[in-house]
Amino acid sequence: MGSTRARIAIDAMGGDNAPAEIVAGALKARQELGVEVLLVGHADQIKASLAQRKDVDISHLDGVEIVSAEEVIEMHEEPLTALKRKRKASIRVAMDLVKENRAEAVVSAGHSGAAMAAALLRLGRLPGIDRPAIGAVFPTINPNKRVLILDVGANVDCRPKFLEQFAVMGAIYSEYVLGVAQPKIGLLNIGEEPSKGNDLAVRTHQMLAENSFISFIGNAEGRDVLSGNFDVIVCDGFVGNVLLKFAEAVGEIVLQTLKEELLGQGWLGKLGTKLVEPSLRRFKQRVDHVEHGGGLLLGVAGVCIISHGSSQAQSIFNAIRLAKEAIDCEVLERIKSQYPESTQQSPVSQPSAES
Amino acid sequence: MGSTRARIAIDAMGGDNAPAEIVAGALKARQELGVEVLLVGHADQIKASLAQRKDVDISHLDGVEIVSAEEVIEMHEEPLTALKRKRKASIRVAMDLVKENRAEAVVSAGHSGAAMAAALLRLGRLPGIDRPAIGAVFPTINPNKRVLILDVGANVDCRPKFLEQFAVMGAIYSEYVLGVAQPKIGLLNIGEEPSKGNDLAVRTHQMLAENSFISFIGNAEGRDVLSGNFDVIVCDGFVGNVLLKFAEAVGEIVLQTLKEELLGQGWLGKLGTKLVEPSLRRFKQRVDHVEHGGGLLLGVAGVCIISHGSSQAQSIFNAIRLAKEAIDCEVLERIKSQYPESTQQSPVSQPSAES
Repeated sequence: MGSTRARIAIDAMGGDNAPAEIVAGALKARQELGVEVLLVGHADQIKASLAQRKDVDISHLDGVEIVSAEEVIEMHEEPLTALKRKRKASIRVAMDLVKENRAEAVVSAGHSGAAMAAALLRLGRLPGIDRPAIGAVFPTINPNKRVLILDVGANVDCRPKFLEQFAVMGAIYSEYVLGVAQPKIGLLNIGEEPSKGNDLAVRTHQMLAENSFISFIGNAEGRDVLSGNFDVIVCDGFVGNVLLKFAEAVGEIVLQTLKEELLGQGWLGKLGTKLVEPSLRRFKQRVDHVEHGGGLLLGVAGVCIISHGSSQAQSIFNAIRLAKEAIDCEVLERIKSQYPESTQQSPVSQPSAES
Repeated sequence: MGSTRARIAIDAMGGDNAPAEIVAGALKARQELGVEVLLVGHADQIKASLAQRKDVDISHLDGVEIVSAEEVIEMHEEPLTALKRKRKASIRVAMDLVKENRAEAVVSAGHSGAAMAAALLRLGRLPGIDRPAIGAVFPTINPNKRVLILDVGANVDCRPKFLEQFAVMGAIYSEYVLGVAQPKIGLLNIGEEPSKGNDLAVRTHQMLAENSFISFIGNAEGRDVLSGNFDVIVCDGFVGNVLLKFAEAVGEIVLQTLKEELLGQGWLGKLGTKLVEPSLRRFKQRVDHVEHGGGLLLGVAGVCIISHGSSQAQSIFNAIRLAKEAIDCEVLERIKSQYPESTQQSPVSQPSAES
């Protein structure tokens, strides 16, 4: 693979289980995905986490680099103030690695607001994009289909043109990273008719309908989100975030409720539970968010994956895989090509736009 | 019971299964709850549905009255236009029965926008209420706790004071109908801190915190909705409606996914499925919306229950029971007492307000 392998900067200090689980996930990705990982954070803590891994010879770690960053932004801190004050914060140093072309992507399970702010401050927005959005991939009722929801938390007060940009970026991500030919785009709304919804939804519906770059198929109600009928659904970051956190909790609640019901039975029921266990495991995998690794911050000049604060090694591994896919599929270049810097026009008015 | 029994006007023509299932649910409520039911709609169709019930002697139906209304508002119609044009529409005639004091409540599974518009036009708002809200009761992870979410669809663009009124009405409903002593009120938001959220959420948070009538315990994130930590959660009708429809769909999807997993097994798995069947049934009951009957339209001068378009007899029965509870608990009078007509003040400034 040599010098062409993807280089991923990992915020080793970010998240509830940092640095041990972050380092473990990074090592797994190094071994299984052939990426280079740059572990950013307290060098001594990272080394201690590496030393704990008995399966790894830390004196011969090819493709694993430690980049020292002696400060951490804590969860309670206000992002912009903290970033200004802590110039050696791990998330800031990680972003600078991308800026200096020493890495192509950043993965962080730390303070998501700080990660977003650091990306905006250090990398900047892509030309033509007013607001970056966080995209999250949800499973659907169809085991072979997933749906990308954006924005799930970067922007709480949106304008129609922001949502239009989310739709364009989402379409590119869905097609090239998730492999969907001509992805079907929906607008999250409370009814099917174009006239339904709040002011933002009504005005956005019209802009999406007129945009020739995307295949807009109409409004998606709450019940349609997991139907598999849509590949990408756009919404403002307030409703998207509420939906994301609700969906994650529902998965856990359903499993717990089911477990309570099953365990409350007699021995025949317990025997039955044993027999259906493989099904329950597969079921858990289908509804479990850990499989998906994290959200992609779309619209900044670098690949940034924002993972759950509760991420463990497998989640971090999945996030790194997602970063690698985004790099390999040239997502940023494809978004840029839709918004030529010279004109800053919307894709709708470009006769050369792909359909 | 005599003349004190509750009189409920039922829109017999509303919903996918009208009038047969509506009539069946109303008869069951008549028999089991001791309410009087007024079946509003095409008299001949209602009579035909009654005649189909072999368990009922229609010549001796005490407490069941047919009120003729020869028009129906169809699902595709624009509510206000349709209500103006169809003066004999079943939903409009049903509302007029409450206005004329011939009934105390309306139950409808028809066009929800039309039901809301008819309530506003024919009954009007309660004094001090700017916008009525639809409240929906969700199950929580705690089998003994439910949570009331409002608004789930009446108002898509809200101001902080609307949400404050929702909180007051929700607190009254939770305490007197759902039987919660000092209900805990939350604001749906995307973070715990008061500064989090969109413009509406930030401003509403402050108003709720200053309102001495309610026990506001802070922001509720998407993951907190079903936690059982909140008794009432307020939000604008856009996000509330998305959440409601998403939650309903998730319940169905989970059950279907689980069924697919279970049926895809060999004979041992099939035996296991048989053995855990009672658990699955109880589980389904806990997540199934049919149990809850419908949403209460709070803030209009009459008790109005808006049921699902897909409602069958059991759902209609539950909706009528909900209407009866709201009447018995004097919800409207209690809301009115919080907003004395003379001053139209917010409850926060009333020294006599209960805590």
